[in-house]
Amino acid sequence: MDFSERMSSYRDDINRSLESLFDKKSPEVLYEPMRYAVNIGGKRVRPILCGIFYRLFGGDPAKVLYPALAIELLHNFTLVHDDIMDDDDLRRGNKTVHVKWDLSTGVLSGDGIVSLAYKVLLKEKFERSGEIIRIFTDGLLEVCEGQAYDKEFETRNDVTEKEYVRMINNKTAALLAVPSAIGALCAGAGEDMVRLAEKYGRALGLAFQIQDDLLDIAGDEALFGKTYGSDVAEGKKTYLYILAVKLMNEEDHKLFLSIAGKEGITRNEIFEVRKLYEKYGILEKAENEAARYIKEAGSVIDLLPEGPFRNELKEFTAWMLKRKY
Amino acid sequence: MDFSERMSSYRDDINRSLESLFDKKSPEVLYEPMRYAVNIGGKRVRPILCGIFYRLFGGDPAKVLYPALAIELLHNFTLVHDDIMDDDDLRRGNKTVHVKWDLSTGVLSGDGIVSLAYKVLLKEKFERSGEIIRIFTDGLLEVCEGQAYDKEFETRNDVTEKEYVRMINNKTAALLAVPSAIGALCAGAGEDMVRLAEKYGRALGLAFQIQDDLLDIAGDEALFGKTYGSDVAEGKKTYLYILAVKLMNEEDHKLFLSIAGKEGITRNEIFEVRKLYEKYGILEKAENEAARYIKEAGSVIDLLPEGPFRNELKEFTAWMLKRKY
Repeated sequence: MDFSERMSSYRDDINRSLESLFDKKSPEVLYEPMRYAVNIGGKRVRPILCGIFYRLFGGDPAKVLYPALAIELLHNFTLVHDDIMDDDDLRRGNKTVHVKWDLSTGVLSGDGIVSLAYKVLLKEKFERSGEIIRIFTDGLLEVCEGQAYDKEFETRNDVTEKEYVRMINNKTAALLAVPSAIGALCAGAGEDMVRLAEKYGRALGLAFQIQDDLLDIAGDEALFGKTYGSDVAEGKKTYLYILAVKLMNEEDHKLFLSIAGKEGITRNEIFEVRKLYEKYGILEKAENEAARYIKEAGSVIDLLPEGPFRNELKEFTAWMLKRKY
Repeated sequence: MDFSERMSSYRDDINRSLESLFDKKSPEVLYEPMRYAVNIGGKRVRPILCGIFYRLFGGDPAKVLYPALAIELLHNFTLVHDDIMDDDDLRRGNKTVHVKWDLSTGVLSGDGIVSLAYKVLLKEKFERSGEIIRIFTDGLLEVCEGQAYDKEFETRNDVTEKEYVRMINNKTAALLAVPSAIGALCAGAGEDMVRLAEKYGRALGLAFQIQDDLLDIAGDEALFGKTYGSDVAEGKKTYLYILAVKLMNEEDHKLFLSIAGKEGITRNEIFEVRKLYEKYGILEKAENEAARYIKEAGSVIDLLPEGPFRNELKEFTAWMLKRKY
């Protein structure tokens, strides 16, 4: 099997196992929306990453299943509640839980998913279970903090680069650091290796998020996408936005703020923002910053034990980050 | 110190310790509403109960603090999200979090409180930490299930007594069973004693909830309260409501359903419901049911080790349940 076939196979296993968590559970009014939210899917990168780190450190594949699923549930919990907070109607083309059902169901099924995440995490015992649960919990609280910063940024125009990086570190990178570290811990890796795993996850997450910010407007592909410039239209405080506010002269700054987040924004206005970004080298700066984190992730990988799963991690990293923009 | 002075002293300790959890925490947009929600207060019965069971089984008082606080936080988490789901504006005379701030803040600060609950739970290590976390997690999921049943009951007129008892067992009794069992576990009590502690908490919770249902309409004091008959006005599926639907003849059943939950209900109509309850002996039946659980709680206490903290538990039970109706 080549890499993408192996990824598909991992994903199928994970989806089957996730599905089985909801077998014959009552009350249906709770478990049906929970199951729906978890089934909306996604690439399952977090449990896959957990599995790769686990095997990289020589763990027995069967045992890592529950911690990996728990992390995917934790991630899904954040999506259900974020969709409420961001008032989003759709996720991956499907109605969000609070839209398909109602607000109460959205709140409660999120709560149910995080409870189930802990329940699943506790199903398998490891020598260092205490540390595993601690990392899991710290990740959960960190994601809440990241979401709080993100919501706060909506009301501010003076967010600094440092604040922005802290936010995406909390909100995005934490949930890639957690599966990496937990995978290593479950396999009984040494403390220094667990720290490396975490460091890798952080770098991957930061690179991924900055790339995601770029993809909104920078890629040629994005141009033809339906959501081209949707961050600009929303006035979202992305890495590009933060740099714009920091770097532009007074006139351009004013122009930029008059367009970003404007109601009824036109495609031409989005192009104008892109031109402003280009004028100040903002796209390039963001690409360089992403590249810096990609390099960091790569140099962490080089410090991990050699073997087929280190290669798997390299392929995984390239796959996560090889996006055109 | 007499019992009520000791309770006050326990409560003060708990409040001080809760407050210290929020020292210098950022982001403020997350921790300020979390702190507010936790400070709205309450009687702190769950951490107190945890402490009593802990000392009853000979534990060192200092060590039980964090598990006890974690349970109080868990309880507060459920209140913040329940207030959103029930669209309640006030809690103990203070604005609820989602009203004082906004919906997003309500959702997120609830999430933050449950995360913090786990973080606090993990601060102290015990020989049976694994089991403690498991009981805590089962309680969390059970409360979600109970809330789901409760919300579902709003749309139904055919809720059975059995379904109702399951709901309050999940929603109310679980969060009294959890502190009892965890208190015993932290002190290293034997498995049979932990099961007794849990059984006591369940009985206490069921008795407490049925009494709460009765207090809405049955007491002489309630008559003069501002919220007299508010469950009737809301058409809430209380134990009394369930019995009414089960026992009334067709005519009275029709009359009852035409009043309960009616918009712009009058005080006279609430009296009419009370008369219907009296006609079918519903208040008496509910009192008997509460008394049955009170007796059960008492007989569990008699099986616990003798000593000053068994007496404390007796006093605590009497204090929790000695409410006029």
